[in-house]
Amino acid sequence: MQFDSLDDISGFCRDLPTGDAHSADAAARRQQMLTKPPGSLGRLEELAIWLARWQACEIPRLDRVTIAVFAGNHGVAARGVSAYPQAVTEQMVANFAAGGAAINQIARLAGAELKVVPIELDRPTRDFTVAPAMDADEFLRAVDVGYRTVPEDADLLVVGEMGIANTTTAAMLCAALLGGGAARWAGRGTGVDDAGLARKRAAVETALDFHRAISSDPLGVATALGGRELAAIAGAVLAARRHQIPVLLDGFVATAAVVPLARLRAGMLDHCRAGHVSAESAHRALLAELGLDPLLDLDMRLGEASGAGVAILLLRAALACHAGMATFAEAGVSGADE
Amino acid sequence: MQFDSLDDISGFCRDLPTGDAHSADAAARRQQMLTKPPGSLGRLEELAIWLARWQACEIPRLDRVTIAVFAGNHGVAARGVSAYPQAVTEQMVANFAAGGAAINQIARLAGAELKVVPIELDRPTRDFTVAPAMDADEFLRAVDVGYRTVPEDADLLVVGEMGIANTTTAAMLCAALLGGGAARWAGRGTGVDDAGLARKRAAVETALDFHRAISSDPLGVATALGGRELAAIAGAVLAARRHQIPVLLDGFVATAAVVPLARLRAGMLDHCRAGHVSAESAHRALLAELGLDPLLDLDMRLGEASGAGVAILLLRAALACHAGMATFAEAGVSGADE
Repeated sequence: MQFDSLDDISGFCRDLPTGDAHSADAAARRQQMLTKPPGSLGRLEELAIWLARWQACEIPRLDRVTIAVFAGNHGVAARGVSAYPQAVTEQMVANFAAGGAAINQIARLAGAELKVVPIELDRPTRDFTVAPAMDADEFLRAVDVGYRTVPEDADLLVVGEMGIANTTTAAMLCAALLGGGAARWAGRGTGVDDAGLARKRAAVETALDFHRAISSDPLGVATALGGRELAAIAGAVLAARRHQIPVLLDGFVATAAVVPLARLRAGMLDHCRAGHVSAESAHRALLAELGLDPLLDLDMRLGEASGAGVAILLLRAALACHAGMATFAEAGVSGADE
Repeated sequence: MQFDSLDDISGFCRDLPTGDAHSADAAARRQQMLTKPPGSLGRLEELAIWLARWQACEIPRLDRVTIAVFAGNHGVAARGVSAYPQAVTEQMVANFAAGGAAINQIARLAGAELKVVPIELDRPTRDFTVAPAMDADEFLRAVDVGYRTVPEDADLLVVGEMGIANTTTAAMLCAALLGGGAARWAGRGTGVDDAGLARKRAAVETALDFHRAISSDPLGVATALGGRELAAIAGAVLAARRHQIPVLLDGFVATAAVVPLARLRAGMLDHCRAGHVSAESAHRALLAELGLDPLLDLDMRLGEASGAGVAILLLRAALACHAGMATFAEAGVSGADE
């Protein structure tokens, strides 16, 4: 296993690569020379420079883009917190394999390889309202699954998830690590009615009370109140940092999955961007907490990496301009008067 | 010419096609059957249904996408309202032809054909602070150029522009037709300094005063206070409506160009979506006035259809899901409990 203990993860986070400032500077200088007013491509410029930093290359590439979708099941589903039965997690994994889901279409369009990784679907986590969701071994095993999913030579990693009831788990992590209670973090997910939403909030409040002793320890919270697919996302984001691979995070659940990492160390998410802001009500607040400015805002709330998958297209646009545009000198275009 | 008088345009707008409700309904029903919680693809669903309405087809296509970039020169440039010399308009047209501009890279990535249409660059409009920018013949000729640029069989039209000083012209149209004065509509464009911004606002205020007699007549305003590339955009948007072709508008200037049409008739822009909201400060307010909700918000302010060009990629994502996803029945996935 990549990590033998929770302390191993904390240790890993103390000595992180920080990207290549020289390549970022070179990319920024290149942007200034291209035939456009300085800054006029807005975030497309920033994205090109960010990719340059993490790929350590003035003109980055997106030849190998990996979308990793992790799937898990959740004991808290028994509390009636989702509009869908738990069997849907496995049914959707089969749908991914058959190519019928949204992310299959988006991955093909975006030129990405899709890796779908179900994690012990026949062993849901324990219901965290009455017990720890996982023990440390179970958590580390799921982190390891995520870590090993990331190809060392990927140009970009996109992380997403599938798991009935996992917006409850995501709300749980946020409530435990960021405060504000269930009302701030629990929303309608795939579309629960008012009664379902009330059950969801009650589950989070019950668990907050049950686990209050551990709530200052990020990895302890991720273990006792998290989920396997969320742990795998954290593992994948750690592997990406090790290999200096830039990352696009998907929606509320995928973002909540990295909150424990963000709490371990400042700058832990510097290699990540938020692909989009979801319609799930708490996602915008969570991104603000983490200082992440989403690339897209399309009222999507599907998960399965669909929002971040669409955002790959924006990175391709950023690089197309960065790599392909003429400079003022090449094109014989006059610069600004000033 | 397509229109022999301004009244011809008004008449055209009285009898507009409204798209195919049957196809839109069929597309909406299809979205409900796909393997995702209803509504969870957010705007991607709405976009698929909108394309279905205007293409009169349950499963729309984007086989022929035309990006039209119109270029013009502006007499008001003599007032020192831009950071760039007027020669840059023609230099950038050459850059488009050589494939070196941002829109060239974006068009290739998005699978679109790029049509660049310079309009009488050697004859700038007259300085509207002291004279009408165009007479009716000049305006109608530019509208006609735009109208004829649109292929009848296009699946999507994207409109953009290039023209040194044309954010001043765009601010002029907005101030004359929507009120609020120069301070509301004139911003920094390609990047003027404080003194340039003051000159820009002074030019708009001077012209508002000079032309106050015509300010209630949308096409009169478009003639006396507009520009050739803006008139051509209006013409292209009219042609698209005639042929029921959906349209993506680019930034502040392209949106200002259709304000006269919007003022002629309610629903005139139903076949249009705003590709993005620009960093040019007045664009957000203008979109709100027109009831257009932009697809992207990336701090871009380049023009030349670059923002809307990137938004083509979102339409492709919308259609990839709409056309390619499995239904619940096909995939054997359970629906919601409710």
